[in-house]
Amino acid sequence: MSEPLRIALAGLGTVGGGVVRLIEANADLIARRAGRPIRITAISARNRGKNRGFDATRYAWEDDMVILGERDDVDVVVELVGGADGPALALARTTFEAGKGLVTANKAMIAHHGLELAKRAEAAHCALRFEAAVAGGIPVIKGLKEGAAANHIHRVYGILNGTCNYILSTMEDTGRDFADVLAEAQAKGFAESDPSFDIDGIDAAHKLSILASIAFGTTIDFGAVDVTGIRRVLAADIAQADALGYYIRLIGMADVETDATGQTRLFQRVHPHLVHRDHPLAHVDGATNAVVAEGNFVGRLLFQGAGAGDGPTASAVVADLIDIARGDIGAPFSIPAAELEPAPPADSGHRTGKAYLRFTVADRPGTLAEIAAAMRDAGVSIESLIQKGRVEVAGESRALVSLVTHHGPESGIVEAMRLLDGSPALAEPPLVMHILED
Amino acid sequence: MSEPLRIALAGLGTVGGGVVRLIEANADLIARRAGRPIRITAISARNRGKNRGFDATRYAWEDDMVILGERDDVDVVVELVGGADGPALALARTTFEAGKGLVTANKAMIAHHGLELAKRAEAAHCALRFEAAVAGGIPVIKGLKEGAAANHIHRVYGILNGTCNYILSTMEDTGRDFADVLAEAQAKGFAESDPSFDIDGIDAAHKLSILASIAFGTTIDFGAVDVTGIRRVLAADIAQADALGYYIRLIGMADVETDATGQTRLFQRVHPHLVHRDHPLAHVDGATNAVVAEGNFVGRLLFQGAGAGDGPTASAVVADLIDIARGDIGAPFSIPAAELEPAPPADSGHRTGKAYLRFTVADRPGTLAEIAAAMRDAGVSIESLIQKGRVEVAGESRALVSLVTHHGPESGIVEAMRLLDGSPALAEPPLVMHILED
Repeated sequence: MSEPLRIALAGLGTVGGGVVRLIEANADLIARRAGRPIRITAISARNRGKNRGFDATRYAWEDDMVILGERDDVDVVVELVGGADGPALALARTTFEAGKGLVTANKAMIAHHGLELAKRAEAAHCALRFEAAVAGGIPVIKGLKEGAAANHIHRVYGILNGTCNYILSTMEDTGRDFADVLAEAQAKGFAESDPSFDIDGIDAAHKLSILASIAFGTTIDFGAVDVTGIRRVLAADIAQADALGYYIRLIGMADVETDATGQTRLFQRVHPHLVHRDHPLAHVDGATNAVVAEGNFVGRLLFQGAGAGDGPTASAVVADLIDIARGDIGAPFSIPAAELEPAPPADSGHRTGKAYLRFTVADRPGTLAEIAAAMRDAGVSIESLIQKGRVEVAGESRALVSLVTHHGPESGIVEAMRLLDGSPALAEPPLVMHILED
Repeated sequence: MSEPLRIALAGLGTVGGGVVRLIEANADLIARRAGRPIRITAISARNRGKNRGFDATRYAWEDDMVILGERDDVDVVVELVGGADGPALALARTTFEAGKGLVTANKAMIAHHGLELAKRAEAAHCALRFEAAVAGGIPVIKGLKEGAAANHIHRVYGILNGTCNYILSTMEDTGRDFADVLAEAQAKGFAESDPSFDIDGIDAAHKLSILASIAFGTTIDFGAVDVTGIRRVLAADIAQADALGYYIRLIGMADVETDATGQTRLFQRVHPHLVHRDHPLAHVDGATNAVVAEGNFVGRLLFQGAGAGDGPTASAVVADLIDIARGDIGAPFSIPAAELEPAPPADSGHRTGKAYLRFTVADRPGTLAEIAAAMRDAGVSIESLIQKGRVEVAGESRALVSLVTHHGPESGIVEAMRLLDGSPALAEPPLVMHILED
């Protein structure tokens, strides 16, 4: 058997610990599939003495993780500390300067610096791999880069954040409200003590921007993702969606369009959506992730599995290492980084679809007429309307009015919202959720 | 850009035509992702003059396809003629003898001769790839070999035959009976004029035996797959399953167990199963395929997409070609063929689970008592029993009795069937369908 692939691990948190356990537990299998052993030679973490359930003393230790990439006994650095900048980015740069490969689960760093890092990796003829950065254990980056490689991808979308999906599907199952379920998820460790990264959609947007770059050959543009999280989704919204045959899911979606001047434009959105119960994403529950890619020959592909957790994430990290051990370096974003094309954001105004709108209103005459008039004046046609449910806003009881539009231009909805902006009839801004198109 | 990868195509039927169209339509994209162009240099098919919707005269023609592998202007042969033996196998052998790579969609040939061909390919340091042989466009072989490579796989199962799934889901939607839906599927081209390969489960068994080998590192043992097709499923069975919260799907399932002597044994079964409506496979409709793999770190992965058709199958063929163009040769079955271990078939008798049993009985006193007594004597505990529906058997009207067992050993059901064998109360042998365990 050939020489082992020698790796250094930066970060021994949940995922780092999982990687050590996986490499130790499945060593023989990995060596057979990779054609050579994968061996941890050095590690670095914040706290050397912490009990992690494995014997860390068998590996060389570096207090300064940035040194890991410079060690002579390391072929590939595995970065699991996280953070878009700071030590993770310094380590990545040092690693490529030293001519070593990098495997990372760091979605923020790739979303912000992926293009720079891919160029550095390619210039150094080194691997840069980040399967674990998107959708945990699901091999969706491999699925797009290799499995669907023969296809022009029209659209990529999915459930990219397990915390949000856990909260939404628990709200659905129990009828409880957002804050209550979030608090429970935090107590159980399914949500961070500062949950905004997840529930405000930032994490899903990081992942979506990475998927879009690979799918469409465009440069990553995280800043252009239109992001709305799930904080404003009420149990009442879930009940009303259910009555209409839909489930609510936080969907990240990207596609490309060509504008009148021939310019490719990139559409990227992370919003809570209504998903029809016949759509496979409607049945993705709990912390599961799922990604759909639509190609011009393959049609619709779905990849589904655990979106987080030490085992699944470690599985993705080690899959990348096995590929590298087998000699597969390849372009990090499927085509060479220099060929990725910048694509300005698409104008969502001329997109069409159906939407769910929910208004929190004062219970008084004329409120419904005002909403209906705004819809009419904006040219938005209403398919169904429900007035149902009550909610407390700032100590006052308010009524909820929900409606589903007919298929029409999104610009009409924006215009209707503009007409209603500041109306004293509305106790808070309306909630707009798009309905996922098949 | 590097030298093109030069390919020869054997077979220009539905899939072969799709491969030509794909390579022509997506040529630029393929070249960017593969790092070099993929170019068809030679073709062979039964009828040279047939109009196939593309200009076949731009490629060199061979009347004898076995010659393709020997041409100096060919790097990889794509075999799309089918058949376990005969010309396809001769072509594969010739190709490796000439030191060329082979990509094939031929599940029968791989199921019967995969080990021999993998050994030949490895000895010649040539690629042997067959993503298109299993589940059409879905990159599930890549998913197992690479995406889940870090894991010991416990179990692999799924919906592997689009024709059966189309028939079952159409029966479900329309309440029509098997023969009627099959005839319609044949008229529409969704089923072959001789449909037995699909509906008797042979095609699914080919695919399952290939998946099992990759998942478990065992030699392919197609002959040991326990196969039952869908011919005997009645509209009444679907209705009764539905009333209990289940859908009926033809499931191929494989796992490995270690027997008392430490011997690894391989369990492989293709049977119609009852799938609970909360399981993701329950919502796989029409000609769609889906495969689940369960790994010791990644948990449950699901891959879903189009299981057949020219576009999806061509997508899988060209994905293999792109991998080869990128220099990824790799072991055909994930580990070297010489290391694949023969595993004798597992004894299904000590497996446990729930089952659905349906009896077609004469309408007379004592019938139910006889069935119930056989269950009791065999130690099978009944969870629910339905007597409902009538069916014509040999011109006589018969009653249907369906029951679902409690969780228990499969050996009990075999014993109960033995006790009832030949009973004059039964108009035909009982139908046994297992309930898919989560």
